[in-house]
Amino acid sequence: MKKIGMIGLGRMGGNMARRLRQGGAEVVAHNRNCAVTRDLAAETGLRAAETLPQLMEELGAAPRIVWLMLPAGEATQQTIDMLLPMLQAGDVLVDGANAFYKDSQRRAGELAAQGIRFVDVGVSGGVWGLKNGYAMMVGGEQNAVEQLEPFLKILAPAPDKGWLHCGPAGSGHFVKMIHNGIEYGMMQAFAEGFGLMKGKAEFDLDLAAIAEMWRHGSVVRSWLLDLSAEFLQQDQSLDAIAPFVADSGEGRWTAFEAIEQGVPAPVMSLALMMRFATQGANDYPARLLAMMRKGFGGHAVKDGEK
Amino acid sequence: MKKIGMIGLGRMGGNMARRLRQGGAEVVAHNRNCAVTRDLAAETGLRAAETLPQLMEELGAAPRIVWLMLPAGEATQQTIDMLLPMLQAGDVLVDGANAFYKDSQRRAGELAAQGIRFVDVGVSGGVWGLKNGYAMMVGGEQNAVEQLEPFLKILAPAPDKGWLHCGPAGSGHFVKMIHNGIEYGMMQAFAEGFGLMKGKAEFDLDLAAIAEMWRHGSVVRSWLLDLSAEFLQQDQSLDAIAPFVADSGEGRWTAFEAIEQGVPAPVMSLALMMRFATQGANDYPARLLAMMRKGFGGHAVKDGEK
Amino acid sequence: MKKIGMIGLGRMGGNMARRLRQGGAEVVAHNRNCAVTRDLAAETGLRAAETLPQLMEELGAAPRIVWLMLPAGEATQQTIDMLLPMLQAGDVLVDGANAFYKDSQRRAGELAAQGIRFVDVGVSGGVWGLKNGYAMMVGGEQNAVEQLEPFLKILAPAPDKGWLHCGPAGSGHFVKMIHNGIEYGMMQAFAEGFGLMKGKAEFDLDLAAIAEMWRHGSVVRSWLLDLSAEFLQQDQSLDAIAPFVADSGEGRWTAFEAIEQGVPAPVMSLALMMRFATQGANDYPARLLAMMRKGFGGHAVKDGEK
Amino acid sequence: MKKIGMIGLGRMGGNMARRLRQGGAEVVAHNRNCAVTRDLAAETGLRAAETLPQLMEELGAAPRIVWLMLPAGEATQQTIDMLLPMLQAGDVLVDGANAFYKDSQRRAGELAAQGIRFVDVGVSGGVWGLKNGYAMMVGGEQNAVEQLEPFLKILAPAPDKGWLHCGPAGSGHFVKMIHNGIEYGMMQAFAEGFGLMKGKAEFDLDLAAIAEMWRHGSVVRSWLLDLSAEFLQQDQSLDAIAPFVADSGEGRWTAFEAIEQGVPAPVMSLALMMRFATQGANDYPARLLAMMRKGFGGHAVKDGEK
Repeated sequence: MKKIGMIGLGRMGGNMARRLRQGGAEVVAHNRNCAVTRDLAAETGLRAAETLPQLMEELGAAPRIVWLMLPAGEATQQTIDMLLPMLQAGDVLVDGANAFYKDSQRRAGELAAQGIRFVDVGVSGGVWGLKNGYAMMVGGEQNAVEQLEPFLKILAPAPDKGWLHCGPAGSGHFVKMIHNGIEYGMMQAFAEGFGLMKGKAEFDLDLAAIAEMWRHGSVVRSWLLDLSAEFLQQDQSLDAIAPFVADSGEGRWTAFEAIEQGVPAPVMSLALMMRFATQGANDYPARLLAMMRKGFGGHAVKDGEK
Repeated sequence: MKKIGMIGLGRMGGNMARRLRQGGAEVVAHNRNCAVTRDLAAETGLRAAETLPQLMEELGAAPRIVWLMLPAGEATQQTIDMLLPMLQAGDVLVDGANAFYKDSQRRAGELAAQGIRFVDVGVSGGVWGLKNGYAMMVGGEQNAVEQLEPFLKILAPAPDKGWLHCGPAGSGHFVKMIHNGIEYGMMQAFAEGFGLMKGKAEFDLDLAAIAEMWRHGSVVRSWLLDLSAEFLQQDQSLDAIAPFVADSGEGRWTAFEAIEQGVPAPVMSLALMMRFATQGANDYPARLLAMMRKGFGGHAVKDGEK
Repeated sequence: MKKIGMIGLGRMGGNMARRLRQGGAEVVAHNRNCAVTRDLAAETGLRAAETLPQLMEELGAAPRIVWLMLPAGEATQQTIDMLLPMLQAGDVLVDGANAFYKDSQRRAGELAAQGIRFVDVGVSGGVWGLKNGYAMMVGGEQNAVEQLEPFLKILAPAPDKGWLHCGPAGSGHFVKMIHNGIEYGMMQAFAEGFGLMKGKAEFDLDLAAIAEMWRHGSVVRSWLLDLSAEFLQQDQSLDAIAPFVADSGEGRWTAFEAIEQGVPAPVMSLALMMRFATQGANDYPARLLAMMRKGFGGHAVKDGEK
Repeated sequence: MKKIGMIGLGRMGGNMARRLRQGGAEVVAHNRNCAVTRDLAAETGLRAAETLPQLMEELGAAPRIVWLMLPAGEATQQTIDMLLPMLQAGDVLVDGANAFYKDSQRRAGELAAQGIRFVDVGVSGGVWGLKNGYAMMVGGEQNAVEQLEPFLKILAPAPDKGWLHCGPAGSGHFVKMIHNGIEYGMMQAFAEGFGLMKGKAEFDLDLAAIAEMWRHGSVVRSWLLDLSAEFLQQDQSLDAIAPFVADSGEGRWTAFEAIEQGVPAPVMSLALMMRFATQGANDYPARLLAMMRKGFGGHAVKDGEK
């Protein structure tokens, strides 16, 4: 098994490096904040690279494997730009972060012109991946993916499960995007269901106990339910939590994809828009509706908080 | 033309009495608060009845016409119960308020057993009906509706426009319910559109001017747009208005109807649910979503305001 | 452990009787079609009752347990009406089929007046329950539920998992209704996701392999995904399947509940309405839209198939 | 008043040229199919240009006004490319077709670099614009728009109504896009409402009469209702119409915009997706749902038509 270079040791990248080390892989790692790298080196025995050139040098001769695990699209592009002069024909460059699949297709084309093989890997599993393994959706050329196989087998829940070479470059991020779209829909479905149970004061339901019960034998059993059962067990009032739900690129990209394809994805799109509504973006439309009601029916409006 | 008894002189009933008087009808009116009746009598020359028996007496011998214009379903039922001993075979009892059409069907059946003819009239036009006339959707037996015709012709925008005998008892309220469902969808469509224009700060759009422009020649020209143009002209910031939108029975009934029929009405249902969301009812689901995101991805949640 | 009487041996009831027998319970069973009962008796050693009186007699003295597992609301009501003269104070009557929770609340009240204890049990797990156990949501009085415990422990995936006394009568069917609402949303989310992957011909994705991969380590892993992976493995074209999706009462009841509570459940409601659309119920609205487009824009419409 | 060059004499462009001529404007026109131009010249007295160079020559010295009214984005781009060598600093180039506003912003920038002033005009009114006038949403520099004013005043329903200089280049197409998004929502709302009335066989409603009645005094009165009343009057069965609804770019762009802004536009997006569903794009998701139901519940599926 070759060495793997891992750039970006945040919540995802750090744990993936740990799991690779636990699986016996040789890992050279770099993080913008060198202290993070040093700590992880001390913890796991990976090789810390303080700079990108040092990381490339530690990886030895081409073909090498460099796996980016950076938070945002911009950071990924900047790092690729910096790496480019150091990369050689045959090297495999992996983007394991979330990215819009069309960007990955474009990147693959640009890098291929220089003989560099780009592989996009959609990684699912969150903070639990370290323990359970990650589901990985891989896009790229066959021979590049073959180089990655030993590492994918360690990162996955089992060597032959939880990772798939989906198709050409871009397809890994595409399938991950769809995965997240489904996740948005499932989450919203659970949120609505628990909302209706909470709203039925008459029955004074124990939502934590219900979530736990559903985990066994029901049609809705799922990992999202497992997680919900766990946090509801701690505090089912959720009073300490603000009713604000962030969204990230993949939900939006999935909705774009549906519109571009002309394929209905109403539940995914709506799950996304319900998040927008929690972010305050529905306030002006709501004010307008209140005024329309007043306009035709003389219905009272509430004063704003100004 | 016979006399008409009008019970309930609120925002709708009061203006309808005025329009009937302007059209030359003889109106005997009653309101729970007698001062309202007296003032309206002074203003319009209608006959004020301090009590229900007095109103019935003023109307003379059966067949008589009594038109209820009461705010809530309960008030209507109570008043019908009180009127019942005073009503005689042949009398026409009209419910001009919003009511669930199945309740109206039931009422019609119960009253028919005593020879009383029930007519349900869905009335649209809001506070502008006094000036513009009301659209009226009428359900009931042919001969009962014929008794009402002279009054419908005065209340409508024109004698032969804006009122329709839709079908048997219940059908008037049914068509009014659908009307309001459509109204919910149209309002939400406008709210979303103006929301997106407000959100496009880059263009610094004058929403009042746009609404006014659309009123002339565009596909979306409509009375709801006319009203919107008017209030946006006053203040397009809407800062003084709380982002809270009430809903009323008809929107809910329309969604029920769609589900019962098994006919998709996604836009109407969603317009209703977006109103629920403005009423705070989406807070628990939102908190749950935030916690799920934290659960699988370690994403930060905002603290609640507790 | 007491005996249990099971009425209704269809897809659900038959398997539940099997699982009870496998767990060592004494089961007396009745089915409208006696051949079914006899076959199941031969297979499992349960006692076959050809008639309801025979079933009651086999169960011995009150308090007895009679569990109804009948397909439709009407059959349940008819059977309860027939059983009523044979039931005695203290008997526990269970409805394990899907029913609208308000009907169950009403039934519980009516039966309580005669000293009969009604318990509503929402049962999830479908055809796989025989092997995996059923998730059961139980509503009723504490002492009645205690009588059922030995049987619930056999039917559930494990004695202390997958069943819950949720609250008073009606709450079992309420929680099951919500469960099914969530199921509708989850199913629609998966359907949309697979639809978008199918639509992305460029990547020529292997949907069966993707479903299988997601089962391991991904955020969307769930039983519905397990099932999908299985049938996609057989044939991912789905060409042999008509694009028609039936719906059942629970989805509709959940949407009703949301509207009644005024709590937004847009994804659940929409998942339901998307099913309506597959049933042909969207055809008239679609025709109308086509005609409106023609009306304002002169856009061509397609001829109908009439 | 200057001359105006009009390129594209289809359903929209042809009628706009007619209205300009009726208003006394000097129009030089060109259409790919010269016969169309000749016929319109004969009908209206406009000057026919067989080629683009001829059109430019007829318009005389810069600054000139060239108004494109071409059906698709591609045709517009090709024509602009062909015109470019003939345009001079100060010329005003108008795109009156629907275009994505970001494309218009980009075009304006590119043309400005050569001193050419680009104006985007969103035109609403469809086939009725000839008679009623068009609503026009105008984006571009103040001095370019001033050049257009005399023509806008003729095209609009009234000189000072139905046209607006919304803001910088792109804003005209942006506001038109939002207009169409609102239109999608309104149309869907009406379609759902009429669908529910059609579905209520019990009342045997006359949908044409209801539409006509609503036109007078109701809250939903609108131009879309006027059109609906008209075609329902012809045939309310709509049996001859296929339940297939096309969609065009603006609906999709509006949904994109909502997602990009993070502002909820659930009704607009859903109206769009309901159209996708009528186009057959929901078939695979529906098949998958049917198979999932079979998978967990043993529910029968219908055979496909293959």
